[in-house]
Amino acid sequence: MKSLKYSFIKIAAILIISLCSCNIAISQEENIGESSATWIWYPGDFEIWLSNKMQVRRTEREAVFPPLWRYYSPFPLVTFQTDVNLPEEDEVTIYSEGSFQLLIDGKQIYGQPKSVTIEAGKHTISLKVYNQEFLPSIYIQGKYINSDESWIVTNEDKLWIDEKGNAQQSGTPWKPVGSWKFNSPVEKPSDFRLETEPWNAKTIEPIGDGELVDFGKETFGYIKIHGIKGEGRLALYYGESREEALDPAKCETLDYIKFNGSQALEYTHDESKAFRYVQVQADPSIKYDSISMLYEYLPLDYRGKFNSSDGLLNEIWDVSAYTMHLTSREFFIDGIKRDRWIWSGDAYQSYLMNYYLFFDNNSVERTLLALRGKEPITAHINTIMDYSLYWFVGIYDYYLYTGDISFIEQFYPRMKSLMEFVLGRRNKSGFLEPLEGDWVFIDWADGLPKTGEVSFEQMLLARSLQAMSKSAEIAGDKNDQKRYENLAKQMQEKLFDVFWDEENQVMKHQRINGEMQETVTRYANMFGIFFNYFNEDQKQSVKEKVLLNDDILEITTPYMRFYELEALCAIGEQEYVLEEIRDYWGGMLELGATSFWEKYDPSDEGDEHLSMYGRPYGKSLCHAWGASPIYLFGKYYLGIKPTAAGYTQYEIRPNLGGLDWIEGKVPTPNGDIEIYVSKKEIRVTGVKGEGNLIFTSKSKPKGTAKITNLGNDEYEVIINPDKEYKISYKAI
Amino acid sequence: MKSLKYSFIKIAAILIISLCSCNIAISQEENIGESSATWIWYPGDFEIWLSNKMQVRRTEREAVFPPLWRYYSPFPLVTFQTDVNLPEEDEVTIYSEGSFQLLIDGKQIYGQPKSVTIEAGKHTISLKVYNQEFLPSIYIQGKYINSDESWIVTNEDKLWIDEKGNAQQSGTPWKPVGSWKFNSPVEKPSDFRLETEPWNAKTIEPIGDGELVDFGKETFGYIKIHGIKGEGRLALYYGESREEALDPAKCETLDYIKFNGSQALEYTHDESKAFRYVQVQADPSIKYDSISMLYEYLPLDYRGKFNSSDGLLNEIWDVSAYTMHLTSREFFIDGIKRDRWIWSGDAYQSYLMNYYLFFDNNSVERTLLALRGKEPITAHINTIMDYSLYWFVGIYDYYLYTGDISFIEQFYPRMKSLMEFVLGRRNKSGFLEPLEGDWVFIDWADGLPKTGEVSFEQMLLARSLQAMSKSAEIAGDKNDQKRYENLAKQMQEKLFDVFWDEENQVMKHQRINGEMQETVTRYANMFGIFFNYFNEDQKQSVKEKVLLNDDILEITTPYMRFYELEALCAIGEQEYVLEEIRDYWGGMLELGATSFWEKYDPSDEGDEHLSMYGRPYGKSLCHAWGASPIYLFGKYYLGIKPTAAGYTQYEIRPNLGGLDWIEGKVPTPNGDIEIYVSKKEIRVTGVKGEGNLIFTSKSKPKGTAKITNLGNDEYEVIINPDKEYKISYKAI
Repeated sequence: MKSLKYSFIKIAAILIISLCSCNIAISQEENIGESSATWIWYPGDFEIWLSNKMQVRRTEREAVFPPLWRYYSPFPLVTFQTDVNLPEEDEVTIYSEGSFQLLIDGKQIYGQPKSVTIEAGKHTISLKVYNQEFLPSIYIQGKYINSDESWIVTNEDKLWIDEKGNAQQSGTPWKPVGSWKFNSPVEKPSDFRLETEPWNAKTIEPIGDGELVDFGKETFGYIKIHGIKGEGRLALYYGESREEALDPAKCETLDYIKFNGSQALEYTHDESKAFRYVQVQADPSIKYDSISMLYEYLPLDYRGKFNSSDGLLNEIWDVSAYTMHLTSREFFIDGIKRDRWIWSGDAYQSYLMNYYLFFDNNSVERTLLALRGKEPITAHINTIMDYSLYWFVGIYDYYLYTGDISFIEQFYPRMKSLMEFVLGRRNKSGFLEPLEGDWVFIDWADGLPKTGEVSFEQMLLARSLQAMSKSAEIAGDKNDQKRYENLAKQMQEKLFDVFWDEENQVMKHQRINGEMQETVTRYANMFGIFFNYFNEDQKQSVKEKVLLNDDILEITTPYMRFYELEALCAIGEQEYVLEEIRDYWGGMLELGATSFWEKYDPSDEGDEHLSMYGRPYGKSLCHAWGASPIYLFGKYYLGIKPTAAGYTQYEIRPNLGGLDWIEGKVPTPNGDIEIYVSKKEIRVTGVKGEGNLIFTSKSKPKGTAKITNLGNDEYEVIINPDKEYKISYKAI
Repeated sequence: MKSLKYSFIKIAAILIISLCSCNIAISQEENIGESSATWIWYPGDFEIWLSNKMQVRRTEREAVFPPLWRYYSPFPLVTFQTDVNLPEEDEVTIYSEGSFQLLIDGKQIYGQPKSVTIEAGKHTISLKVYNQEFLPSIYIQGKYINSDESWIVTNEDKLWIDEKGNAQQSGTPWKPVGSWKFNSPVEKPSDFRLETEPWNAKTIEPIGDGELVDFGKETFGYIKIHGIKGEGRLALYYGESREEALDPAKCETLDYIKFNGSQALEYTHDESKAFRYVQVQADPSIKYDSISMLYEYLPLDYRGKFNSSDGLLNEIWDVSAYTMHLTSREFFIDGIKRDRWIWSGDAYQSYLMNYYLFFDNNSVERTLLALRGKEPITAHINTIMDYSLYWFVGIYDYYLYTGDISFIEQFYPRMKSLMEFVLGRRNKSGFLEPLEGDWVFIDWADGLPKTGEVSFEQMLLARSLQAMSKSAEIAGDKNDQKRYENLAKQMQEKLFDVFWDEENQVMKHQRINGEMQETVTRYANMFGIFFNYFNEDQKQSVKEKVLLNDDILEITTPYMRFYELEALCAIGEQEYVLEEIRDYWGGMLELGATSFWEKYDPSDEGDEHLSMYGRPYGKSLCHAWGASPIYLFGKYYLGIKPTAAGYTQYEIRPNLGGLDWIEGKVPTPNGDIEIYVSKKEIRVTGVKGEGNLIFTSKSKPKGTAKITNLGNDEYEVIINPDKEYKISYKAI
């Protein structure tokens, strides 16, 4: 086969032409100004590499416990490229993760230079990087030429030469590069670790010849041993509870560390664990001074805030925020002891809570990318039908809350291929019905039917298709936009045609082989409320006949409790919901919880609170879905939510839920909305965008702004940016 | 999300049930006898990992030069599984490349044990292995339980538990594992290297302060420096020719090695190169005793043999065999200096030569797997349309020569997805016409038209569809078999309908936008002969009007010369072809070739023989396609070829081509067919299978076996296994 030696003169023009005919539209502006460099890679590949590494870190008593779904890999061979127009020559330094080939204007530069001088004028710079082991990435630093978001990348450059020696390139799938926050040449993506800070033990208690170390609250990180001397084994038995750490035979995680006598005085363990307590038992041949830990965390600002006249609720908000922070790590994970995996259904709730706490877009994007993986798609996300669908709904919300279109523009092809996979699994009636290998999860609930056509899945599909229609529009694909819009409409109509019970005015649960089943469950009924698929009459009927009906199969997991409470709030049951929150979350606090649990059953006693799945310490005591008050307080009490993408329009509909006063902040892309509400006064400071404050008042409200009477004791104030509004009123 | 802790009792039955419903039919026989262990992995993944590593080893003056096409990766997370029925307890040792989770009957075993005792009775053993860096693989050794070809593997085990704690598994895509020859726990797949043996220099000549080392013939491997002392730089300038090694500024490969003074006395360079000569120039601060090399090679038997009354032809065969061996490495590559890549068109010729020399099935399989990669398919193999098609034709031949159906059974899904990709790129007329990103190669030839619908590509597609039809039958897919059979027929008919010139009785070259072009080239015309797509009249017309017609665009590359000479042999022009071989290959030998070149033009003079692509030493002097006499001598002079899969039937149709005598061996799956032919005598020893010796004789032949007169001076002898036949006859 012909050598691919590049001819300098000939290739330049061809490359420029071919870039114009690349598969995706990329505004390939030339870098002409000075900029700063960052590490860049194939978009999504860092997230795949990191999530592979993170999820396999789950251990159970020293056995690794990897996920049950498919792992993808970064592309091991990628080509980075940029066009520049230099006002003067530029001395460029090259850092690379992987061996590389450098081409300037299609001409190969010999060796793998650490720096290169590029003369003034227009140039195309390409680096082909190979790295099978981790992630091919580069950091290029010059006065003018810097690796940044403006570069493009491909996993198949298809640069070949014809028989005349001319270089040819066509059909190259160029993409904008991926990057994050690796802004220095020494901060390599492969070295990524979360931040750590030293924490000392709160109390120490002797246990036999060893000790029980209590760090005072649920935490995550690496045990440190100070002043370690001697040879032998040291055992660490971790516990989210005291009981677990005291039970070497049954605790879920443990480490046996062997010292050979020649170790340094200070030892930091290399595996992270979730715990509050750790029991340390060392061989008599080993001595040490003390135990501490490195707390590991993702640095995030607590932008959202909540405070109220009820101290218990405030504490619930604080512990929820801490729970959310502990589970917001490399990605949004379910629990820090277990599974330490990224589950799309769990992550979807984290996205929502994030919008009312951190508003960290990058965490949402990283998680979406890790969940989605790459091509080909051979199974649902996490193998679960509903979890593929939550992924789309998550993007719908992401766009609504953040207004960020770049993610959709960039990853629309991955959205589309997943949606086509999903659509390809519909049955003859056009409904999703599980095929071999499809896990229908919905919820853990005894006797919950999951076979055949389940209305809940069809409702998620309808919403997913709406997300696709909007995304196709953003990605500029009008045909797709139309197609998904129609499919969404059809799906919503079919959903009501088949599952809506006209007689009883509720959504039924299931049809099997064309036969409608009489079962009614809460799932589709509650989602139909906050998806706004029901009209007001339907909502009232569903509220009475389903949500507040004890004959309907009860929801027992905090996972679905999230939506149940949301649905109740969405129909104005804030006061009822606050009582539920006080009972459920307050109940955990009463039992000493320092983070919220995977599950809580008030009727359990003693050690029963720790067990799950038939294992005495099987329950995770720090689970993301336990943090839902963050979301509920922000959205349904402070009452703030976007009504157009990225808070360009938003609504503030405060609800005291029976409290004397509440106050707080809700983050947006353009700063934080601040609000204080008592029974007599409402104070609001808005952000960029048009806000609508809507409230009810027994008496005619007064304030510095124009107050519009909407009738039925309802009033509206238009909130303009960065102004404080004060309204006197009388709460109903 | 729910923990995936396994319940011992419950899972066992479910696992057994679910294995029966897996996607592919695997005869999951229980291991009950003693067997020997080997390293196992996900099928095809070792080949992908190794080919990625190998192909990026191409360097040009210290710059790496990776391929222009997409790289795939091994699955980083796979689950191995086997069912056993143990007569007694078995102590099993576990070796793993990657961290692992061990499950016995669905129950997780704590830790990552190096050995485990499994009690007597029926068991399911599973190991989930994670390895992002290279290849997840295992080696399990017990008295009864051993990792071997009977194990199955998946990249997504989909083992989850429902709300009742029962394990569920469905839709798991189990596959039979891949393995090769790693039969000891210490011979890990990731450590794979070819064999080496030390070679000494033949002559040494002082060059300035350095020296020129000549190893006597073309070779490949690692330079060794003996007695190296001091600090400084040592330069190695490699040359396939003396001229190249003497030209530090222009030689294609070089190495600069830095010594810091503390090195060992003996140094072996870590990068392999192709060369006969190496110029060594060391800083004066460096002293060494001598230079040698480690010759690197794939151990292969030279089963095919050829000898004749013409010493020149014998030398040509010997040098061809050496050329073929040098390019038969981790995979069949094009050239050892350059490109060191796997090109499907080049490899296809290596497969054919392999059947007449090594008959090494595994090399063919490795190469086919490396070329094919995995899913998704986003471009043609090597980005070249014809190269996707040669891949199918290569499998057609592989089955014909070896009779091996296991490769097709195992990889039929990859064949099918590639064929569907190819079929998806047909135009409205149903012909292949290049889309964006499709490189139509055919051959390097000035003025060769490659746009529009080219007959040559359609002919390769027709043959590929025949290969698919046969493969679908072997894989047990009757619908596919029928579909591809029909498509093949249609394609062959359309090919003749559109491109066959009834008036001139030749195949035309091209149609553009529905307009037939008058051009006639050799390509489709010569393939039509040995594909047997022409009838005898058509063949004669094509021979006269195309093959022996100097007005038709000449073929100048040894690549297409291969097929041109084959076509001429296939219509009985052996004597003419021998003259061509003496001229062309003899010409290279006369110029001192010790391996055959990428290209040879008798009209070149001096250094012109070394240059190509505008570079003074650009030409590869050891190129696989230069070794075609191996194939031609075996198939068209010794005259041996299979007529049914795996030589269950075969033909021996010797042709002296004007020589006094020829003799040789042709390998088959069941031993070597031996033949001696002079003008008076034919001696044949057959192998298992039915052989048909067909020859012409002026007089009535005599022999120990039954000789059937076929008319027209043609005779036939049935050759039974392992018997020597002697026939006296009189050559025409």
